[in-house]
Amino acid sequence: MKKLINNAEDVTVEQLKGMALAHPDMLEVRFDPNFVIAKGAPAKGRVAIISGGGSGHEPLHGGYVGIGMLDAACPGQVFTSPTPDQMYEAAKAVNGGKGVLQIVKNYTGDVMNFEMAADMLRADGIEVRNVIIDDDVAVKDSSYTAGRRGLGTTVIAEKVCGAAAAEGYDLDRNAALCKKVNVKGKSMGMALTSCITPQNGTPTFDIGDDEMEIGIGIHGEPGAERMKVKNADKITEILTTHILDDEAYTRKLAEWDVDKGESVDVEVVDETFQSGDKVIAIVNSMGGTPISELYTVYGKLHELAEKKGISIVRKLIGHYITSIEMQGVSITLVKTDDEILRLYDASVHTPALNWGT
Amino acid sequence: MKKLINNAEDVTVEQLKGMALAHPDMLEVRFDPNFVIAKGAPAKGRVAIISGGGSGHEPLHGGYVGIGMLDAACPGQVFTSPTPDQMYEAAKAVNGGKGVLQIVKNYTGDVMNFEMAADMLRADGIEVRNVIIDDDVAVKDSSYTAGRRGLGTTVIAEKVCGAAAAEGYDLDRNAALCKKVNVKGKSMGMALTSCITPQNGTPTFDIGDDEMEIGIGIHGEPGAERMKVKNADKITEILTTHILDDEAYTRKLAEWDVDKGESVDVEVVDETFQSGDKVIAIVNSMGGTPISELYTVYGKLHELAEKKGISIVRKLIGHYITSIEMQGVSITLVKTDDEILRLYDASVHTPALNWGT
Repeated sequence: MKKLINNAEDVTVEQLKGMALAHPDMLEVRFDPNFVIAKGAPAKGRVAIISGGGSGHEPLHGGYVGIGMLDAACPGQVFTSPTPDQMYEAAKAVNGGKGVLQIVKNYTGDVMNFEMAADMLRADGIEVRNVIIDDDVAVKDSSYTAGRRGLGTTVIAEKVCGAAAAEGYDLDRNAALCKKVNVKGKSMGMALTSCITPQNGTPTFDIGDDEMEIGIGIHGEPGAERMKVKNADKITEILTTHILDDEAYTRKLAEWDVDKGESVDVEVVDETFQSGDKVIAIVNSMGGTPISELYTVYGKLHELAEKKGISIVRKLIGHYITSIEMQGVSITLVKTDDEILRLYDASVHTPALNWGT
Repeated sequence: MKKLINNAEDVTVEQLKGMALAHPDMLEVRFDPNFVIAKGAPAKGRVAIISGGGSGHEPLHGGYVGIGMLDAACPGQVFTSPTPDQMYEAAKAVNGGKGVLQIVKNYTGDVMNFEMAADMLRADGIEVRNVIIDDDVAVKDSSYTAGRRGLGTTVIAEKVCGAAAAEGYDLDRNAALCKKVNVKGKSMGMALTSCITPQNGTPTFDIGDDEMEIGIGIHGEPGAERMKVKNADKITEILTTHILDDEAYTRKLAEWDVDKGESVDVEVVDETFQSGDKVIAIVNSMGGTPISELYTVYGKLHELAEKKGISIVRKLIGHYITSIEMQGVSITLVKTDDEILRLYDASVHTPALNWGT
């Protein structure tokens, strides 16, 4: 294993320390338990937005903490869910009295621990809503997840909900917005190579020199299909077709019922893509794929979307939700409307996303 | 070789096509010969800034074309200098009557071809200044270069000179600024793995599982020393010490002499780093190294700089000047003054750098 690290057990803390030194204008890092909070916390007079998950997916989530996006991020060890006490302490630090929205990628450990943190916060009288992102069209159920996994739609949800909080959306309106983004977003990824976690030191999975994994998970967990390597156009076509042709996915997701004072399972149905849709696209490196290759993928994606009558009105092309140094790409498409587009375009000042005034 | 490409011979054109589709708000791509020009070209009433070089170093240079930085970029084939006709046509397309500044990384082919393009442009009555960036402290002379190679200081020079052009600096003042940035900037890189060019399909160099190359060039050309892999702190210390302790480097660089109407060799002496300096830092992935690891490097760099009394007042941490998918890191430090800092902070709107209004 060759990595720019010191000791495998310290990677998360050392990266967080570097982040704190690099971005004091945007964020602050607290340790034991570890979390990243936005400069200017707590979020006085508005909803606070929190996310988190295992490390190894940088810039997710710490790179999205700052002005106009996340108020806090809770990083676990590499590919390991953060603990409820991280989320609890982060929420206590950023809560400004208007409640906390926790955006949770659908991995079993993350969902469970964010639920536990929500219970702890409610016991302290803090209003909490958890919204699950489950946008990966590749597989239903995997080694990390019951149901579909959370992928790139998470980035768009964090951006949009952060802007909505800044605009003054109350907690329920912001949670409804987050759920809307989730049913409008679909993603799928693929890998040319495995990643290597620092703690293991060897590839997470074996893959032949002539093979690729379609529908890979962000922890290197198996995807939908192992096949011979294809060219960029064909790979882009496989991912894009899965996303655009995905039928209305129906599942039950836990939601907080204010009247009952408990979580209840609510049926959620995805939207499907239609001619005339305007979308935000992410062409995302899994970590080791260079930016140059992403543009070849973007070119083909643009052509395929256009053929279906779908316009890509905003795009992110780069490293947004990664698997350490894995080579590969994921594509995310999120249908927009005026509200989503306005909030997406709002100013943001974080290490990884930065635009506007 | 596993890459997200179609045919090896088409990679540059396909990536440029994707770029054109992705960023019509910032740039336009012309083919035969290939170059990228900023939206709104020509640069009416101000100096035009041009750069270029082999592909494979993305986002350099095309990713820096847009508003407030480069007016044009000329990409060669992978690791191959662009041709004089690319530079000539690009300059003709963006020249707004106030002359053209060509920022040239010190690789023999680039220097020669930009000189030839300058001669062609002068024959057409267009004022041209070429400024060479030779900031790599690792080696003097290599397989691609006579003298020191051009590295990350190029990015800062492009940013600062682009802002100066927007502010209305005339050609000689902008060229003087570019030369000032060059003598204030120093860089050094290292590799954990080789890169693979699409045309070769095999690693550019062999490196053992327990080895690293210190002072690597951005084409995978040999560095200063091959050694056993060290941890991130030690690697950062090696690079930072070379940069901070580098003595005043003296060399002759070609400069256009207006009175003589020819290029003359002028002695150029680098500045050295001193306690009290304020610097812009780049912690740059060579392509395959993930963002997370760059933060560990940044943390150590910050500590080492502080120990020497040097403040990092601005920083870029990510993918800025790469070698396809090579794993490794380069560090660039550029001494600033009020002028450089003001111009660095000015608004920029390009695919790879984006801030301000």
